[in-house]
Amino acid sequence: MRESHNIRLAVIPGDGIGGEVVAEGLKVLDAVGLKLETTTYDLGAARYHATGEVLPDETLAELRGFDAILLGAVGDPSVPPGVLERRLLLKLRFELDHYVNLRPVKLFPGVETALAGPRPEDIDMIVVREGTEGPYAGAGGVMRRGTSQEIATQESVNTAFGVERVVRFAFDKAMTRPRRKLTLVHKTNVLTYAGDLWARVVDRVSAEYPEVTTDYCHVDAASMFFVTQPQRFDVIVTDNLFGDILTDLGAAIAGGIGLAASGNVNPARPGTASWAPSMFEPVHGSAPDIAGQGKADPTATILSVAMLLDHLGLADDAARVERAVADDLLERQVAWVPRSTFEIGDDITARVAG
Amino acid sequence: MRESHNIRLAVIPGDGIGGEVVAEGLKVLDAVGLKLETTTYDLGAARYHATGEVLPDETLAELRGFDAILLGAVGDPSVPPGVLERRLLLKLRFELDHYVNLRPVKLFPGVETALAGPRPEDIDMIVVREGTEGPYAGAGGVMRRGTSQEIATQESVNTAFGVERVVRFAFDKAMTRPRRKLTLVHKTNVLTYAGDLWARVVDRVSAEYPEVTTDYCHVDAASMFFVTQPQRFDVIVTDNLFGDILTDLGAAIAGGIGLAASGNVNPARPGTASWAPSMFEPVHGSAPDIAGQGKADPTATILSVAMLLDHLGLADDAARVERAVADDLLERQVAWVPRSTFEIGDDITARVAG
Ligand SMILES: CC(C)[C@H](C(=O)O)[C@@H](O)C(=O)O
Ligand SMILES: CC(C)[C@H](C(=O)O)[C@@H](O)C(=O)O
Repeated sequence: MRESHNIRLAVIPGDGIGGEVVAEGLKVLDAVGLKLETTTYDLGAARYHATGEVLPDETLAELRGFDAILLGAVGDPSVPPGVLERRLLLKLRFELDHYVNLRPVKLFPGVETALAGPRPEDIDMIVVREGTEGPYAGAGGVMRRGTSQEIATQESVNTAFGVERVVRFAFDKAMTRPRRKLTLVHKTNVLTYAGDLWARVVDRVSAEYPEVTTDYCHVDAASMFFVTQPQRFDVIVTDNLFGDILTDLGAAIAGGIGLAASGNVNPARPGTASWAPSMFEPVHGSAPDIAGQGKADPTATILSVAMLLDHLGLADDAARVERAVADDLLERQVAWVPRSTFEIGDDITARVAG
Repeated sequence: MRESHNIRLAVIPGDGIGGEVVAEGLKVLDAVGLKLETTTYDLGAARYHATGEVLPDETLAELRGFDAILLGAVGDPSVPPGVLERRLLLKLRFELDHYVNLRPVKLFPGVETALAGPRPEDIDMIVVREGTEGPYAGAGGVMRRGTSQEIATQESVNTAFGVERVVRFAFDKAMTRPRRKLTLVHKTNVLTYAGDLWARVVDRVSAEYPEVTTDYCHVDAASMFFVTQPQRFDVIVTDNLFGDILTDLGAAIAGGIGLAASGNVNPARPGTASWAPSMFEPVHGSAPDIAGQGKADPTATILSVAMLLDHLGLADDAARVERAVADDLLERQVAWVPRSTFEIGDDITARVAG
């Protein structure tokens, strides 16, 4: 046990398979050998049904006191669509100002993909998805509900402030990568107001990053290129909804949703007023159909733990976890045996510890 | 030459490769042996640069007099994003009330796909994309443009009227297919106002179609399933923007954008007040990078011509064109030789004529 880091971690297992995968993530985190205090919060469908609460103000205030948050998954068919998503998951992203939703799309060696052609080096990108505005703002409304004259609107809200900060993050990220390429994905030819803002911001900020090659791709074309030419992409910066779609697609081309990790990142310096804990979670949902059966792959959660470590400045530990996962994935190719959630977690934990 | 049908067709080659692919579509149409009058309209980038006009009112009025419209592609880098798209292509779709944007996603035997696994029977769906509202409404605006306080909005407008008519079309379409399965794709857990309207309409209309199995899938998950389990889908009904993204992705999994056809359909009965000509176009864009080089694949346009024939009630002729394409695609697999746009058009024409 090293004494240098005393990490206070909030854990929100959530719904469905959330608890199962989070347990394995924590097992791996334990094996890293950090001084760790975890506090678990029972937010999600069960709490909602029992008390009607989704995310009480006091809980939100408490969560602000942690170094980071590990989240399993949110959503259950017993709760009307949007209740847990908007009032728990999105509320956390918005209130803790997770304006960067960081989602690597990376094909590990040995992993089979749904695509015919690609080699691991063809699929190695990172999607920087905006996390606090766009079509996720919750703006909109309904008139004459239930009548033949009903109108329902949904508004995408984009601010120079919100776009610029995530675009800057993406340029900085591109600078850390060998290819130094940044692609803006949007739909400027149709969503002309929002698209124009995004395009102008990328253009303006690019002047400060002469080493970064910038590129633009419509979201429809980008979806196609994810499948036909994934090597086009290095760093992608995009809006909240396009990022949502592209990163599920990204999971599909990089070995499946069981491997896709994400970080809801607040990049402010700790101690500053705008800082709040970042939150790490697998891209997959709560998968109620397989919950409680030990069938879920905890790898995405474990890779999210690696992102968490990296975010906390523990790059070596992060690399250790990622290496353990990479080795496990190679092993799966050579000698595939069916394993439970628990067994996969154990095997990766053993590699981290070993 | 048969005398029974006298088809008046408006042709809009448009920009980039539009003219090249449309020429081959017309060649095939000629070979079908219908009585055909075509009138070509020079709308697009060149006209815009020469006269500043995009779609004059008189031209729009004239276009209403045709039985159908064949369009190549619209868009050119020399024109600011959105000008031709919004004021030409989308204006046509909106003014002619093309509320059904019909896009088959079908893997023809012999066609290679970017995916590792699928057989032709695994990819055979049809996307019924709403064509006249949603995020394409053009609603939105910008405040304090160019300042650090800029806000740009983009509004999705959804009406019970608009959603119900396209949903009904999709149910009718599902009834014509062996599997009779309809999947609504949306993002009800985040876009709660619009998603709720869509979900309620599908639910209500489904009561009138007891033989159709209905299903729901979030757009992010749907993007993933297009790649990993395309056989999940039979008929999809979805919003304008989700349909845009999914159908490019659909092209990617079904042999590429060179094969993807579409119809912007106004399903009203000819002679009724709401009738207007439907417009058929390949899903691909104007591809300015390869324009004028004879490199574009005209197959998507030729399949769009088949959809046009089918729409005009000429099901046998449509089937003949589709069969000619299917045979050509099989032949490509057996003995692939590089062919120009013109040569592919010639070969398919010969099959239609023969
Ligand atoms: C559950 C849902 C609200 C969420 C989103 O749309 O962001 C999920 O799909 C994701 O990508 O994290
Ligand atoms: C060119 C563009 C406006 C158009 C759309 O977004 O509908 C195209 O992508 C399509 O799918 O037909």
